Amino acid sequence: MDKIYIIGVGLIGGSMAMDIQSLNPKAKVYGIDTNDAHLDQAIDLNVIQEKATYEDLIHADLVILSIPVDTAVKVLPKILDVISDTTLVVDVGSTKLPVCQSVESHPRRRNFLATHPIAGTEFSGPKAAMTGLFQKKTNIICEVEKTTFKLQEKALKLFSDMGMRIRYMNPEAHDKHIAYVSHLSHISSFMLGKTVIEKEKNERDIFDMAGSGFESTVRLAKSSPDMWTPIFKQNRANVIETLEEYINNLKGFKALMEADDFDEIYNEMKNTNHIKDILNGIA
Amino acid sequence: MDKIYIIGVGLIGGSMAMDIQSLNPKAKVYGIDTNDAHLDQAIDLNVIQEKATYEDLIHADLVILSIPVDTAVKVLPKILDVISDTTLVVDVGSTKLPVCQSVESHPRRRNFLATHPIAGTEFSGPKAAMTGLFQKKTNIICEVEKTTFKLQEKALKLFSDMGMRIRYMNPEAHDKHIAYVSHLSHISSFMLGKTVIEKEKNERDIFDMAGSGFESTVRLAKSSPDMWTPIFKQNRANVIETLEEYINNLKGFKALMEADDFDEIYNEMKNTNHIKDILNGIA
Repeated sequence: MDKIYIIGVGLIGGSMAMDIQSLNPKAKVYGIDTNDAHLDQAIDLNVIQEKATYEDLIHADLVILSIPVDTAVKVLPKILDVISDTTLVVDVGSTKLPVCQSVESHPRRRNFLATHPIAGTEFSGPKAAMTGLFQKKTNIICEVEKTTFKLQEKALKLFSDMGMRIRYMNPEAHDKHIAYVSHLSHISSFMLGKTVIEKEKNERDIFDMAGSGFESTVRLAKSSPDMWTPIFKQNRANVIETLEEYINNLKGFKALMEADDFDEIYNEMKNTNHIKDILNGIA
Repeated sequence: MDKIYIIGVGLIGGSMAMDIQSLNPKAKVYGIDTNDAHLDQAIDLNVIQEKATYEDLIHADLVILSIPVDTAVKVLPKILDVISDTTLVVDVGSTKLPVCQSVESHPRRRNFLATHPIAGTEFSGPKAAMTGLFQKKTNIICEVEKTTFKLQEKALKLFSDMGMRIRYMNPEAHDKHIAYVSHLSHISSFMLGKTVIEKEKNERDIFDMAGSGFESTVRLAKSSPDMWTPIFKQNRANVIETLEEYINNLKGFKALMEADDFDEIYNEMKNTNHIKDILNGIA
């Protein structure tokens, strides 16, 4: 796969572009982005080599779609309209059901592979791109059986060369579980940041007291609203369910505090401590 | 200050012991701990040099009290009972009002300095101790005017040599603000861990999907219940207030999701994004 087109030259698309170029020196990487300044930046940073347009996609061996999930569902069918029979199109969005549904009856459905590489940072844009971002990360692939076998093989070879391990899952299960382990973490972090910032309006000094624990729990509150608003919108039902459970657990903790039941508060924390062992399983 | 007694040879006490020894090769560091295995471990790890008892404190130049805050308030008056006129006693607990109150009318109140070094990790015990833990960290000192000037000077010299910057605050303000920037983060993290673990009971695979974002937000859920239960108990009113505000913000976010008001969800996140600038102020 020598002709690579990255649609959305941000953190994920840009990092993939960089890995592909270092894995295959013959590869030529083109960028498509609504933000022209990002394209220029991406060229300056050697993330991509040239700008391109949707009409050029007929020449593509590989198209990576890495734009906000609300735009992705609109753009994907149009991409499939213009590619060649041998082009592989991969999306990397954080929700999977809507994007799979957007092309379920498209005549070129078999050229598309739905993926979610569980990798990233709280930063965005081409400057955030880096080589090796996907090393030892999990890539979730949905509806693999709907992609042509030959293109599946090419995709798996690429992901393997990037250092990713693969998990297969149906899009419904993906969206449900990812709400717990990713989307809820972002909301908990944003609301923690909000709670403390609201306090800070009157109490300027409060942040001098913040340590690494606070920094760690609010890190995700730096994330891009442009990326995350469409994710929450597309995964609305699952996210509301996780929020409901999270709020109930917090209310329960507060009720124990109010009832002075510190034995049970101890137990709550002790029972959750085994998150240590679980996290040890995450590379 | 050559004769140093560390009461509680865990993460904070142990790390102070290590810094003191590297700053002053003449210092001899003794350890007191209810957990004898921890004392042996601390000796093996060169965190302390010898075991000691409360009767030995008459010989101390410096006593560092680094035990759970519920025990600290009981032990501190007894320490002041047995020390010499020139001994400096420093506590390092995460709540400050109860410990200050526990000795407010003690005849040796002026030998005591109430501090809270904002430093640590989610780990505990002597194995978690490390040199340099306090470099560029903030140390909050409460009621400094109640400590003998000469002992204040000694303490400030030590903290400065350890690399800490100092903030002065009254104990009420400390306990109120620390509830926001530290105690709430821990609860948010514990309850996030709980919410996801409850889900995992039925869905074993969910953690394969967790990435660094989840890991960052639940890191504090590894923290010791033995340390944190007494903190929540002592800071009950402030913690309940912060929890109330946090739960309300989460409910607000959920209501916006239910009302499909994604413009406002975007604004919520955008407004909280400036946590970036705030966090840049944290070393």
